[in-house]
Amino acid sequence: MNKIKVGILGATGSVGQKFVSLLANHPWFEIAEVAASGQSAGKRYSEACRWIQKTAIPENVGCLEVKECKPGMDCQIVFSGLDASVAGEIEGQFAQAGYGVFSNARNYRLEEDVPIIIPEVNDNHIQLLEIQKEKRKWPGFIITNPNCSTVFLAMVLHPLHKRFKVEKVSVVTMQAVSGAGYPGVPSLDILGNVLPFIPGEEEKIEKETQKILGTFKQGKIENADIALSVQCNRVAVEDGHIECVSIKLKKDATEREIKESLQNFKSSPQLLKLPSAPEQPIILTGDPFHPQPKYDVMQAEGMAAIVGRLRKCPVLDYRMVILGHNTIRGAAGASILNAELLIKRGLLNKFVSV
Amino acid sequence: MNKIKVGILGATGSVGQKFVSLLANHPWFEIAEVAASGQSAGKRYSEACRWIQKTAIPENVGCLEVKECKPGMDCQIVFSGLDASVAGEIEGQFAQAGYGVFSNARNYRLEEDVPIIIPEVNDNHIQLLEIQKEKRKWPGFIITNPNCSTVFLAMVLHPLHKRFKVEKVSVVTMQAVSGAGYPGVPSLDILGNVLPFIPGEEEKIEKETQKILGTFKQGKIENADIALSVQCNRVAVEDGHIECVSIKLKKDATEREIKESLQNFKSSPQLLKLPSAPEQPIILTGDPFHPQPKYDVMQAEGMAAIVGRLRKCPVLDYRMVILGHNTIRGAAGASILNAELLIKRGLLNKFVSV
Amino acid sequence: MNKIKVGILGATGSVGQKFVSLLANHPWFEIAEVAASGQSAGKRYSEACRWIQKTAIPENVGCLEVKECKPGMDCQIVFSGLDASVAGEIEGQFAQAGYGVFSNARNYRLEEDVPIIIPEVNDNHIQLLEIQKEKRKWPGFIITNPNCSTVFLAMVLHPLHKRFKVEKVSVVTMQAVSGAGYPGVPSLDILGNVLPFIPGEEEKIEKETQKILGTFKQGKIENADIALSVQCNRVAVEDGHIECVSIKLKKDATEREIKESLQNFKSSPQLLKLPSAPEQPIILTGDPFHPQPKYDVMQAEGMAAIVGRLRKCPVLDYRMVILGHNTIRGAAGASILNAELLIKRGLLNKFVSV
Amino acid sequence: MNKIKVGILGATGSVGQKFVSLLANHPWFEIAEVAASGQSAGKRYSEACRWIQKTAIPENVGCLEVKECKPGMDCQIVFSGLDASVAGEIEGQFAQAGYGVFSNARNYRLEEDVPIIIPEVNDNHIQLLEIQKEKRKWPGFIITNPNCSTVFLAMVLHPLHKRFKVEKVSVVTMQAVSGAGYPGVPSLDILGNVLPFIPGEEEKIEKETQKILGTFKQGKIENADIALSVQCNRVAVEDGHIECVSIKLKKDATEREIKESLQNFKSSPQLLKLPSAPEQPIILTGDPFHPQPKYDVMQAEGMAAIVGRLRKCPVLDYRMVILGHNTIRGAAGASILNAELLIKRGLLNKFVSV
Repeated sequence: MNKIKVGILGATGSVGQKFVSLLANHPWFEIAEVAASGQSAGKRYSEACRWIQKTAIPENVGCLEVKECKPGMDCQIVFSGLDASVAGEIEGQFAQAGYGVFSNARNYRLEEDVPIIIPEVNDNHIQLLEIQKEKRKWPGFIITNPNCSTVFLAMVLHPLHKRFKVEKVSVVTMQAVSGAGYPGVPSLDILGNVLPFIPGEEEKIEKETQKILGTFKQGKIENADIALSVQCNRVAVEDGHIECVSIKLKKDATEREIKESLQNFKSSPQLLKLPSAPEQPIILTGDPFHPQPKYDVMQAEGMAAIVGRLRKCPVLDYRMVILGHNTIRGAAGASILNAELLIKRGLLNKFVSV
Repeated sequence: MNKIKVGILGATGSVGQKFVSLLANHPWFEIAEVAASGQSAGKRYSEACRWIQKTAIPENVGCLEVKECKPGMDCQIVFSGLDASVAGEIEGQFAQAGYGVFSNARNYRLEEDVPIIIPEVNDNHIQLLEIQKEKRKWPGFIITNPNCSTVFLAMVLHPLHKRFKVEKVSVVTMQAVSGAGYPGVPSLDILGNVLPFIPGEEEKIEKETQKILGTFKQGKIENADIALSVQCNRVAVEDGHIECVSIKLKKDATEREIKESLQNFKSSPQLLKLPSAPEQPIILTGDPFHPQPKYDVMQAEGMAAIVGRLRKCPVLDYRMVILGHNTIRGAAGASILNAELLIKRGLLNKFVSV
Repeated sequence: MNKIKVGILGATGSVGQKFVSLLANHPWFEIAEVAASGQSAGKRYSEACRWIQKTAIPENVGCLEVKECKPGMDCQIVFSGLDASVAGEIEGQFAQAGYGVFSNARNYRLEEDVPIIIPEVNDNHIQLLEIQKEKRKWPGFIITNPNCSTVFLAMVLHPLHKRFKVEKVSVVTMQAVSGAGYPGVPSLDILGNVLPFIPGEEEKIEKETQKILGTFKQGKIENADIALSVQCNRVAVEDGHIECVSIKLKKDATEREIKESLQNFKSSPQLLKLPSAPEQPIILTGDPFHPQPKYDVMQAEGMAAIVGRLRKCPVLDYRMVILGHNTIRGAAGASILNAELLIKRGLLNKFVSV
Repeated sequence: MNKIKVGILGATGSVGQKFVSLLANHPWFEIAEVAASGQSAGKRYSEACRWIQKTAIPENVGCLEVKECKPGMDCQIVFSGLDASVAGEIEGQFAQAGYGVFSNARNYRLEEDVPIIIPEVNDNHIQLLEIQKEKRKWPGFIITNPNCSTVFLAMVLHPLHKRFKVEKVSVVTMQAVSGAGYPGVPSLDILGNVLPFIPGEEEKIEKETQKILGTFKQGKIENADIALSVQCNRVAVEDGHIECVSIKLKKDATEREIKESLQNFKSSPQLLKLPSAPEQPIILTGDPFHPQPKYDVMQAEGMAAIVGRLRKCPVLDYRMVILGHNTIRGAAGASILNAELLIKRGLLNKFVSV
């Protein structure tokens, strides 16, 4: 088949670069357009970009001219790695102009008619697009993916919530510096240090998780009734967010049942064989020294949640450590998987008009 | 007054060195003896020691001859920075020989007749020395101080427990590499990484806290009835353990009451004006970006618990971040404060026979 | 005596903060004014400033109102921690308005009539102030201190140059991140990495050293005839620049003679007992594992050059490792020492008219 | 063809592990035996080994039983990642027993009859095997590869030496912690620090380079007449040694000629198409911000020397920055390439008798 043309908004930033490298050899998509802020526009991508990926800039992208972030781009889909300070306006303009927008920014995530999709967890929330279309009269749409810490938590909670109903969750994160973009965290702040506060992050993870695990009913998402406490820290790690998690379940569950629920979990992306889907969305390890960001973050090419140290909790019911790649499954890879889902479901042309 | 002669066991190790540097100008104590394992014995301290403190070796200690760790040392008190692999036997020999042993090792901490003392929290547990004497027939004694993460947790829980009764505590630690001694954590393990497991540490913190907050009754410690869940991580920080803590209280408490309880807390070391006592054992900060190991760990010369980010918890009642200096108040400084307490209480000569 | 009122330009930046902390208890100076860019002006210093020092903000400075960087400040001397992008214009305005400007910026350093002073090395270059006055008609003046790597190199070369004449110098630096200011180096750039290039830095060190070691003759500095090759790297160190140096001397010198020249070196600041002068400007260590930034950078309170690993060089004559504190002797401390020199020489009122 | 059976000595150590991962899918070699020190012997490799590679243990190796490091192993070739403290004796025993030994240890490197081979540089030194056989009467042999810093320096100097004759070389290294093995450098030593001394390393690099660039004449290596000064530092980098190099040439050379000599350099491994040979042994970059360990160390799969910042030197003639992967081309990969060379030259059966 002919590849689908896609554009990348905020293409020179760190999430934008991750889109470029992940899409370099994508079987369905072809990067036709790269767009960034005014000072980059007009330059070749390879010149406009301070490239911080470890693989080389794909040649066919390096030579593209960087456009301004305005509709008029030659593509149907745009992946947005825009900063929240501008994403709200620009992403809205693209949806208004008929594009399918897959957004990493927080701006629309908690809007009633915008879904936060994790294909393994809540692909039925795509139905919100109907509501979105009706309400906003957009000829295009916006689908968001979750915050880079939310996604791994929600992926792991989902099979447990379905089987045992999750009541309470206590989470402490240790988040990598790449989660703050580039230039992001100053080295003077983080060398030999831990930052015990990431403004706005805790609330995001709490609310997004409740929405993602919620139920689509009568045109609305009814949030999951789960009490969540999230405490976020920044640590001197490059890639890979760690989450120490305790959960309380409504129904009794043995450790073996928990393990089975996690290990055997497969869902739409696996059944549909989406190109970016991990074979196993949740990888369980019995080695108590793992998961570690440095050694495990690239398992399943960064698209899975790695779970270790599953054990009883003296305060709630079970404890575990979750690791995920914050700029792959936690950002660009999540958007791409969402786009793959939409296409495989045959919904792209229904909701896009360019 | 004449200074009291003290010896240091394991004097060349990282805790031993911290004893040396903290005791360099102590008003009551004089380092008369330094002892270490066989291969160091016989050398001058300055030659035997790979010094890793940031202040110079005190001259009067540098020129001491390192002894073997055997009774026969010219002092009444020994501070032990011995590794757990040998501490059990050697510390016992010194108590047996009539010395007062102040131990950092885990070996005796959970023995029924050995107290784990934090002078601000449970100085009345010193009564266990009577039981210890009776049971073991030692002409000396052993007093332990807690694990380097336990001490800050117990210090902060204590005033809350007294006033509101603590029922449940969920803790996730991010611990500095100096907590593992020297050579300790290999750089290949920790550069750009988080280690989500420290063998044995979680159980230690859970049990020690219950004992320290317990009640001395009829010659025994009755453990506090608090459910604790502790998850430990090692991070690339040099000094300073961070703890993200959530607590559930039996009695209702407003945020203001919690703050007051922490901020106004003073106890025996402050009243007795012990030389190593911090003016305030608990320092509360309202700046959400703090406490940070790099910037705050030396407040109160490393002898206080620094508390920040106090706020409601959606799962338990309150959350906060605690920071403490793991090799000062978490190790050598804790032992020294214990010795000061014993002396001020006039108990040294009662329990020591050298 | 009444303290001399001083102002700090760029007071909220990282060098500005270092000025504030070093001047907090200065016997001669009193911080009367703090000034910064427009967005900080009008705020209290403690609010305007993201404080990154490890000691607390001095109370009497924290409550000052931040001014704009314009003449009209109530002081005779201004210490400038301004960024080079604005320092040229602003520092000129202050000199024009009659202030004595002590500048850390590179802008005026290579001007013919502006001295780069290291009091131990070239205090006679102060004579340039006469030329500067004559040429520019300023009622005030500008004195600069060297780049944060230059200063240590020049301090060590000076006694060798005087006695043996230095012909060639090959230098490779490993520079701390604090040298780039705040926010400065992004953590993604430096965690687990070395940056082998610092734009403009190598030329600065080469040229400044030749000027500083040059001779004041007939109203001009005649540069020292030394061939210098400098290669600069940024490493993941917080404070402390390391320089691996090889030198070729014109006259024969034994290793013992070199050692003596360095160890016994004292100069004006020591003779004049300037308050910020290190007792020994050059501290020599025979321990081959030192100097290390982490353990040695605060020797002599950060005001000395620490030299180690002095040994023969198979290519030039001698090799050594030099360490210095880049934001103390390499920046704020250097300016302060320059001001102390001027005052002790009784030159302040001669060249200042406010 | 049937694969050649190889054994790995010191297989559980960090170099041993790198052999295992590099040989996992080698077209010519098959790991038949893994051997390590007594305490590992008898265990399955996957159990004996604290695996610190980022790829999984190859299954067919993980299940091997670890042998003691004694002849009697079922293979013709042994790759040695043994520590120098035991390598001398054990490698000798294997050569004595008829095996072909490819050694990473320093023990035999400077022996007159043992070659240090870099296939691109001095493959003719293999002729030393004849001398070795004659002198030692070994039915097997030992070939060494250079120290992990030497190899990149020698690779880059070689084409320049051939064309312009190198007279003097000044080198300052910044070496990764993986070069010290595992556990290796304690994290307390290197976090936020630079270690300005690596015992024995400077002499090794100086002497090995002279031998490798030397000439085989009448059964002997005549060392190259090059003056070398090497200063070594350890930095907080995981993989990748950086070298800042200045060179003096006998013949005049333009910058363009130097570039051509480096860029166009190809040699035996490229002509023979050895499986582990990099396409270009020397990769030149014009981007002044590179090479950086973090971003460039895996170019050419870690088998090339990356050169950047080529420019004039005010003291010698030219300066540059060299980067190489210290545990691949600097260790295990170098040994493997040497074995490939020997086989392609048809020399294995001539010198091996098992």
